[in-house]
This record gives sequence, C-alpha cells and structure tokens, in this order.
Amino acid sequence: MALRIVFTMPVTKAMSQTLVRAMSSQAVASKNVGFIGLGNMGGHMASNLIKQGHKLHVFDISKQACDNLKAKGATVYDKTTDLAKNSDYVITMLPNNDIVWKAYNDMTADGVNKNTVFIDSSTIDPNLVRELQKFISEKGARFIDAPVSGGVPGAEQATLTFMVGGTKDEYNTVKPILEGMGKRITYCGSYGMGQAAKLCNNMMLAISMIGTSEAMNLAIRQGLDPNVFAEIINSSTGRCWSSELYNPVPGVTPTAPSNRDYAGGFSTDLITKDLGLAAGVATATNTPIPLGALSHQIYRTLKAHGLGNKDFSVVYEFMKNEANN
Amino acid sequence: MALRIVFTMPVTKAMSQTLVRAMSSQAVASKNVGFIGLGNMGGHMASNLIKQGHKLHVFDISKQACDNLKAKGATVYDKTTDLAKNSDYVITMLPNNDIVWKAYNDMTADGVNKNTVFIDSSTIDPNLVRELQKFISEKGARFIDAPVSGGVPGAEQATLTFMVGGTKDEYNTVKPILEGMGKRITYCGSYGMGQAAKLCNNMMLAISMIGTSEAMNLAIRQGLDPNVFAEIINSSTGRCWSSELYNPVPGVTPTAPSNRDYAGGFSTDLITKDLGLAAGVATATNTPIPLGALSHQIYRTLKAHGLGNKDFSVVYEFMKNEANN
Amino acid sequence: MALRIVFTMPVTKAMSQTLVRAMSSQAVASKNVGFIGLGNMGGHMASNLIKQGHKLHVFDISKQACDNLKAKGATVYDKTTDLAKNSDYVITMLPNNDIVWKAYNDMTADGVNKNTVFIDSSTIDPNLVRELQKFISEKGARFIDAPVSGGVPGAEQATLTFMVGGTKDEYNTVKPILEGMGKRITYCGSYGMGQAAKLCNNMMLAISMIGTSEAMNLAIRQGLDPNVFAEIINSSTGRCWSSELYNPVPGVTPTAPSNRDYAGGFSTDLITKDLGLAAGVATATNTPIPLGALSHQIYRTLKAHGLGNKDFSVVYEFMKNEANN
Amino acid sequence: MALRIVFTMPVTKAMSQTLVRAMSSQAVASKNVGFIGLGNMGGHMASNLIKQGHKLHVFDISKQACDNLKAKGATVYDKTTDLAKNSDYVITMLPNNDIVWKAYNDMTADGVNKNTVFIDSSTIDPNLVRELQKFISEKGARFIDAPVSGGVPGAEQATLTFMVGGTKDEYNTVKPILEGMGKRITYCGSYGMGQAAKLCNNMMLAISMIGTSEAMNLAIRQGLDPNVFAEIINSSTGRCWSSELYNPVPGVTPTAPSNRDYAGGFSTDLITKDLGLAAGVATATNTPIPLGALSHQIYRTLKAHGLGNKDFSVVYEFMKNEANN
Repeated sequence: MALRIVFTMPVTKAMSQTLVRAMSSQAVASKNVGFIGLGNMGGHMASNLIKQGHKLHVFDISKQACDNLKAKGATVYDKTTDLAKNSDYVITMLPNNDIVWKAYNDMTADGVNKNTVFIDSSTIDPNLVRELQKFISEKGARFIDAPVSGGVPGAEQATLTFMVGGTKDEYNTVKPILEGMGKRITYCGSYGMGQAAKLCNNMMLAISMIGTSEAMNLAIRQGLDPNVFAEIINSSTGRCWSSELYNPVPGVTPTAPSNRDYAGGFSTDLITKDLGLAAGVATATNTPIPLGALSHQIYRTLKAHGLGNKDFSVVYEFMKNEANN
Repeated sequence: MALRIVFTMPVTKAMSQTLVRAMSSQAVASKNVGFIGLGNMGGHMASNLIKQGHKLHVFDISKQACDNLKAKGATVYDKTTDLAKNSDYVITMLPNNDIVWKAYNDMTADGVNKNTVFIDSSTIDPNLVRELQKFISEKGARFIDAPVSGGVPGAEQATLTFMVGGTKDEYNTVKPILEGMGKRITYCGSYGMGQAAKLCNNMMLAISMIGTSEAMNLAIRQGLDPNVFAEIINSSTGRCWSSELYNPVPGVTPTAPSNRDYAGGFSTDLITKDLGLAAGVATATNTPIPLGALSHQIYRTLKAHGLGNKDFSVVYEFMKNEANN
Repeated sequence: MALRIVFTMPVTKAMSQTLVRAMSSQAVASKNVGFIGLGNMGGHMASNLIKQGHKLHVFDISKQACDNLKAKGATVYDKTTDLAKNSDYVITMLPNNDIVWKAYNDMTADGVNKNTVFIDSSTIDPNLVRELQKFISEKGARFIDAPVSGGVPGAEQATLTFMVGGTKDEYNTVKPILEGMGKRITYCGSYGMGQAAKLCNNMMLAISMIGTSEAMNLAIRQGLDPNVFAEIINSSTGRCWSSELYNPVPGVTPTAPSNRDYAGGFSTDLITKDLGLAAGVATATNTPIPLGALSHQIYRTLKAHGLGNKDFSVVYEFMKNEANN
Repeated sequence: MALRIVFTMPVTKAMSQTLVRAMSSQAVASKNVGFIGLGNMGGHMASNLIKQGHKLHVFDISKQACDNLKAKGATVYDKTTDLAKNSDYVITMLPNNDIVWKAYNDMTADGVNKNTVFIDSSTIDPNLVRELQKFISEKGARFIDAPVSGGVPGAEQATLTFMVGGTKDEYNTVKPILEGMGKRITYCGSYGMGQAAKLCNNMMLAISMIGTSEAMNLAIRQGLDPNVFAEIINSSTGRCWSSELYNPVPGVTPTAPSNRDYAGGFSTDLITKDLGLAAGVATATNTPIPLGALSHQIYRTLKAHGLGNKDFSVVYEFMKNEANN
C-alpha cells in the first residue's frame, strides 16, 4: 500500500502531517461524495476529499474547474440530479442565497436518494438554511449547514474550521467527511446555527479589525512606534486576533496581507457580504448591532472606493490616508 | 547579598521573578517617595511602596485616606511643597486634567528640589503631559508620565501595568520604583506616549467589549448557546480579550463582573472618561475613529441611563434589553 | 342632488373642503374598488372611497373591521378571488412583505380579471414590487405600487401623500381613485419607485429626528432655552421638518406628540420597519448609509427598551435621560 | 431727518427694511470700532462697518489685509493695546481658541478702556467665552460672544446672522453695530450661548447634509430621478435646509456648490472644526450625540482623503463613489 512509503521517506513536518491525515482514509470508509461549486475554495476542498480516498462526483458551471478535478480522478456531471443520486454526501460551496436555492431545486427536481446527506458549506442566511432543511427533509433526505472559515489557504491545506448546524447524530455522521477538509469541526446546534455562528464571528472580526486600525492609527499619529504599541496592546486588554495575528499596519505581523499591499487574504467584498447577512438576521431578530452596522457601512464605503478586492485589513490604509493633513 | 541566591538555585524564570519580587525590598535601595492622591488605586499603590521598604510622604484631601497610610508608617503633609522637597520621587494619582495641573502648580509654587523625579500615573491628556514636562523641566527637575492599567485589584496586588513616557534613562531610573507597584513596566517612548498608549488601548477595549456584546447577543437571539458560541469565537478570528477573559454574558467567564450583576471591575464612568480623552487627541491629530467615537456615545448613553457605576461590560445588558420583543 | 345642500348650509371651512372633495365624485365615475386590509389606515381609506361614491368590495381577517365597512355600505367577502374579479381596482394595505405576497397569491389563485388594476399601498421591499408586477402582468392584469405617507390622521382626513411607481399611463389611470384618499399623488417612476421614494424619505426623516434630538439636547444642556434654540435653528441652516413641525422637545411645537408623552403619531416600531427595508435595499445596491444604518440601530435599541409603541420622537427622551448626571 | 420718509411713504415692510438699512449710516451714530482679524470674513465685515460711517481701527498679521482696509479709510495699528483703547467696540474674528485667547491677553496687557465692549465673532469653545468674559470683566470692561453664520457671501453682502450671548442690555448695546454687518441679530442668552447655538445648529447641519447625501444616493441607485426625488422629499417629512436649498447632488439646486465641483461654500475643514467644538461640549456635558459624533468622523475621513477645501456637500460625491460597483 502506497501509504507505507511515508515512513521510509525523509519527510518534513508539514509533509508528515499531510500523510498522517491521508492515512486516516483507512479509518474513513471511502464514500461517494458529490461536490457542487469548484471555485477558489471548493476546488481545493474537493481535491482534498480525493486525497482521502473518496470518489468524487462534481459539477461546476466552469468547464476548466471541472477538468481540473477530472484530472485528479473525479467524475464530472452535466446534471446535478444524477450527481446527487450517486452520492452518499453532497457538498455545496456556492456564492450566495439565490444560487444555493436554485442549486437545491435543480438537484432534487426529480426526487432524492433518501440516503444522501446534503451539506451546504456556502455562507448564506440562516433562515434559508431552515427552509432548505425543510425542503430536503420533506423529500426524504437530510440537510445540514456547515459553513467554513479559514479562507483559500485553509481550503488548500485542509485546515478549515467547519461550523455545523444539525442534529448531533447528523454532526457525527458528517464529521469524518469534513475532517478530510478541515481541522476543527465544531458542533453549533440545530439547523442554521452553523451559519449563525459564522456570521456572528465574522461581524466581531470586522469590528475588531476596524477598531485595531483606528487604535493603531491614533497611536501612530500621536508618535508611538507601531511595533511598540502593538506589543503593548497585545499584552493588554485591547488584544484581539486582528491586532495579534493579522495586524493591518505594514511591518507589524510579518505574514499579514498588510505587508503585501493588502493582496490576498479575506477580501473586503466577502466581509461586506457576511456583514450584509449579519445585518439581515439582526433585523429579523430585532437585535441592536450599532458597531456591526457601522462596520458594514465602512466596508461598503471601501468597496465604493474600489477596494473590494483587497484584503479587509486595507481599512487601515483607507482611514490613515493623509492627503490633507 | 540575598539576591545572589537567586542565580545559584536551579530556578525557572518564573520562580526567579517571584523571588526577585519577594526580595526586592532589600534589593531596591529605600527611597523617599512622595505620593499625592490616595484614592481607590493610590492608597494601595502607596501601601505597596511601604512594603518595599520606601519612606512614604503622602498627601490627600481626605483625612481618612491620610490616616490609613499614616498607620502604615507614612508621613502625612498639609502642604505639597514640603512633600515634594523631601522626596526623591513624587507620584501623582489624581482624577483629571484640571486637578493634576493644579497639583503640580501648588506643589512647585516655591521651586523644586532638582533631584526629584515627578511621575504622573493619572490618566490625562497627552498634551497636558507635554506641558507639565516643560513646566517641571524649566524649574530644573524631571517629569514623566506613567499611567496604569489593571484596576483596583492590580493596585492591591501590585500587578499593575505601567506605560511610561520619557527618555530611556528616565525609564530606567523609575523602573525599580514602579516595580514595587506593578508587574509590567513598559517603555512607550517620549513624554506623553505612556498616556497615548493607554488611551489607544482603552479605546480598543471599549470597541471590542461592545462588539463582543453585539455578537454574543446576536448569536443568542438566533438560538446559539452562549457557551458554545463563546468557545467558537475564542478559537477563531473574532477572539478578543473581552470575549475570552471578561465575557459580558453571565455564565461564560466565571470571574467576570457579568456574573455579579456587573458590580466592581472597570466602571462605565471611567471608560467614558478615557474615551473622551481619546476623542480629544483624535480631534487634535485629525484621526478618524468612527467606531471609537460611536463607542464613546454608547457609553455616554449608558451613563445617561444610570449605569455609570456598573462595570463597562453592562453594555451587553443594556443592548439585550427585551422589553418590547 | 344632495350635494347642492352644501352651499345652503352654514359650513365650516373643514366641512366645505370635505364637501368639495365629495363633489369631485361627480367627476370620477363610480368604480368597483376592492380593498384588502382594513386596519388603522385601511379602514379610513376605504371609508373615504365610499364617500366618493365608489362601490367597495372588502376583505380583512378581522370580522369587526369588515362589519364597520359593511355598515357604511361595503360588500364583505370571505374569498379574495371573488373580490378581485368584481373589482376595477384592488387596493392592498397590509403589514409586511410576506403578508402582501401571500395576499396576491391567494387573490389570483384561479386567475385574474384582466381589467383589474392592482394597487399596493403597503410599505414593502421595492424588489417585491417588481416581482409582484411581473407575477400579475404574466397573469394578464396590471400592478403598481403606491405607498403612502401621512399616517392615521392623513388616512382619516383623506390628506395622504401617495408615491406611485408604474407607467405614466397607469399613474393617470389610478390618480382619480387615489385622490379620493389623499391630496398629493406623486409620480415617482417605474415599478418600485414609489416604495423607493418612501423608504428614502423615511430614512431621511429618522436621521433628522435623531439629529434634532441630539442638537436640542446639547443646546439645552449648555443652558439654551429650547424655544429660543428652536427658533434659531428653524431660521437657519439646521432647519428640518422635525425641528419645525414635530419638535421632539415638549413645549416647542404644540401639536407634536412630544407634548402628550409621545403617544400616537408615527411609532418607533413603524420607523424601525421602514429603516429595515431601507437597509435591505442599501445592501442590495451597495449604497453606504452610515447615518441611516446607525439610526436604524438606535431605533432598534429603543424598541428593546420598550418604546416601540411610542411616537418616534421619543428618541429625544431616551437620549436626554439623566439618571446619572 | 431722512428716516422719517420711510414711514410716510406707502412702502412694504421689505422695502422699509431696505431703506432703513440703506440709510442706517446716518441713523447709527458713528463709533470707533476696533477690528482684529481681517481674513476672508473679517475683511468684508470691517469694510461694511466703514460703509455704515464708523471709524475703523484695524489689526491683522497680514500687511496686505491691513492695506486693503487702510485704502478704505481704516486706521492700521501695530499694537492691539492702542487699538483697543481707542475703540468703543472691539470685534475679534479669529481662527481658533488659542489665537483668540492670545489676542485678548495681548490686547489687554496694560489694562483696558472701561468703556470698550469686546465682541468675539470667532467660533470657539463656549467655555472659553466664559473664561474671557470673566477675564475682561475683572479688568473692568465688557465682553460678549457673537459668532456668525452665513459664510463669505453673507460677510460680503452684510447678511450674516449673529448669535449673541450676554446680558439683554449688552445685546441691545451691540445690536446697532452688528446690524451694519448682518441681517439677523439673535439673542441667545447669557455668555457662551451664542457659541452654543452656533455649534448645535452646525452639528444639525452636518447631520442633515450627510443624511441628505445618503438618501439622495440611495434613491438614485434604486432608479429614482434625483429631481423627482428631491421634489418628493422637499414636500414631505424628509425635508431639510440641505435638501431644499443646498442639495449635494449636481443639477438639483442650481445655486449650490455641487454644481461647481463643490468649490466655495462652507468648507469641510470648517464644518469639521465646528463638529470638534460640538464634540467637546458634548463630552463636557455628558450629552450623547451618536449621529453628531459619527458625522464628525465622516468629515474627518473626507479631510484625510484630501477634500478639506471642498464645500461640505462633497460628502455626497465621497459616498456615491462607484469605483467598484
């Protein structure tokens, strides 16, 4: 068996982790996994499932995306109805509410395989999750939400976090599959709670990134050295993930996008989308989110100024702009 | 000398620090230390200096506060001019800009002892620090800023963080004294940078506390369990000091004021004061602080609703209020 | 003809206006008008149409609301399909998106009378307007949006403003009918533009009401007399409808709800609903609305504090609260 | 006496006001008026006083500004002490708190003429007004605040609004002088109330300008014609001075700066300064001003983006920016 080679090769730590992970496919029985949506994230996720030994059944509107997976051994479909019927699990990784809704309608137009578990890893409205769950369960199959965090690098390295909403049984059922794509598989509660957790976390992330940008900028304009101030804040009560691991000021956290002109990372477009979904659920639940709502508008203003494709930490540069000082 | 033992014993770094602290009353030469402002914080700080073996010269408008220190061995003064002249170091710990300014004027009305180093540990405007530094240096003595974080418990247990602004030499001079009252003595840069660091940190703290409150509330209203969601956020990108160590939702962080009806801790009044100072320096430096400014207004609204004396995490309760849902 | 009596009776100005208005029914041919939704607003609107000489065909889930209209001469229906088929115009005046959508589905379940013009006067999402227009036009009839402003008094006195979205021809067709319920019938553009205009106007209204409250409060706390300051602002650049005609400070505008403990008027619940719809269209069009979004959150906080039923000018009282000053 | 003609001619009230103004140089006894600060506003104001027949005693740090006034008949001084002693009234029109404070110190360094009334028309902190009033009254003269609105055109055409803080007697004393420079002389209350009124009005102005920009932008992005929407809002509850007379969208109000690339008018720099003063008094009085504070930060962001010199209605262009849509 190929996997035995592992221990006879001089491997790096990273390689051995990948191999150890790969070996777990012995534990996980090979499954038929459908995958719809082979974009920046989905392509890597599907590839990782192949590495785990699963049989992949894939669909995407991009021929090239399909060809990439085909080259790795996946079966490509034109019709998602067939794809779904051949799958133990179907994972959807799509851009927005409308496309997700349409995908599930198309895929189940002539009924479902009652053994299929549908897993949506897109980021969508938690209410749509509950509608989809009802829709699929009425047809006789199961549906859960399992949105991710960790971005493209997490998808590539199979280190995503999955936030799962469903019954505990369903969680236990899908966990081994999701472990092929991520390192933390969190149980959040019933249907929609995965999305709810993701949206609330990302709202907090947006707030603390903008807050960090304001505090760093204010410190620097008063004459503090950015590294000295970052050290102070990170060992004090102002500390947050953004200040510690993803500092928006160039030169403070070497690996952060701020050091490469805010390229890559988590785009302003995506955080704005998530804040829009969070604002929607806040309206539906009458929850006051003053800082969340203002953060949403700030990111929307950045989009209006052409920064949608930049990493969301570019808000620091937008605010520090000193054209007139 | 006792200190030598430290290095001949097989001690861990942590142990050696403890020993240094324990023995430091012998290590640090006893000094004459003036202390003005013996309130909730200052009283404990002055007591800790006595424990370190220093001779304390104290002043406060409250007779009782003076009596407390007298009982511990301090000399009480009616006139701060005499106090200052008898002191190697004078530490001021006072409520606001105006009182600090008046204290320094009174204290130096008939000149200074040129060997005295004045240390202001109050929280004041960084610009006032620079005015005071100029004022004192023109009289021939030295002045630095060293505001603190850590609150009343930190003052009591001598675990405060001091953020020092001055020359590096001045920092080295005052460090042994400050170590008698705190565990982290951070060098922030020139005059005023201690205050600047403190204000920026506390602005970030206010933003992340309100953000945490919004995110927790939104998660809970959607049906997430607060402990589950806190665990998710704390192992993800939304993590911050407030979510991890001081969660505003009762039952999540056992030691947090949220579990005792928001009593004690860091009051809404104090964070509002700090946000006011931060807003002032932001205006002076033309720095946009949208979330900082909104947080300031939110805390001001809490004060208007009678919550000024509560811990600042009470913002969660203020926003979750469900009278009408 | 009864109307001639008008000029032989000693009439007040208000009476004569009503009679003049009533006389215009000679110009407007009597029509069969369906009315669905006989609530606080709809009941008065339907009554006014009866006064104009139209034949009313009505439906509401409240038996009492139906009975009231029956007593005035309306025909009451259990099934809206029949109501719609018997009507030249159908007016819907319902609480929210979902109820409107369901009403149109029910009403047209077995087809439409192709001569009927459907007029929705509810406040809903402009996108739903466009869906409904498509839905109805595919069935062969016409649909326009015509939301109102003016509140319950405007509905009662037939002084509403209607903001109409549709073709210019459709506008001209419905104008005579709407004139029986309002005094300004504004053409806003194509389908959905009536709703768009209403939502943008009401967002501006919310912002200026909160702004007026802040400015009045800040003026008063500095020692200005509220009437003196209102006079200054109203003859200067800070002037707005809220400061002039609906001042949130008791004693300034005698007719405003602020003088009767913020009872009646335009409720916090309703403006919050409109701000939620405005926030939705802002998200859909990527439009930054920082003050609009913050106003939404402020009103949501008022709801959370039990003020949902109060007039929206109660935001002044909420912010002036001086419990802790 | 010429003035009598006014009342014997069949004139309208407006005509008689014009005549009174035209002839007032004869009606108001000629006074010695000191004027310090001959900038964009002050230069015109001083010129208008000369036209009224007053003897002007002027000072400015710019030689050219002084020469301009000299050419019109003013006496130029190098020392403000002499200027003040020769004046019945001294008007100061200076850029900020610090310069005003220094000007009054310099001017009164060797005492005051006890008959002089000092009038500060600068925009400064109301607390500084009270300090100056105390300072001048202790020296034996009188001091009042009389800030203006109306901008450079108002200064040029003598149509400014003056907001006066002082005793009613002082108001009556200075009114005839101020009428030579403005058309509305408003009594606001005691010392500082003129400034308080101005700051609160301008905060409201900033809020409603940003609100108008948001509402117009949101309407336009949904497809409404800007002129149609402006007409709707201006005859409805969203109406404000900014929407009616100074619309930020080009093409709506022909005379507004939006039609000339936001040149001239009331600069972003100046409204930001006024919002900074308003924020300061709000902090001092514990007044929540969420929309005012956010407006301040938005204008500060515009400054950071190089728009400080543009008219403050440029906020519309800043927010509508569609680089990324």
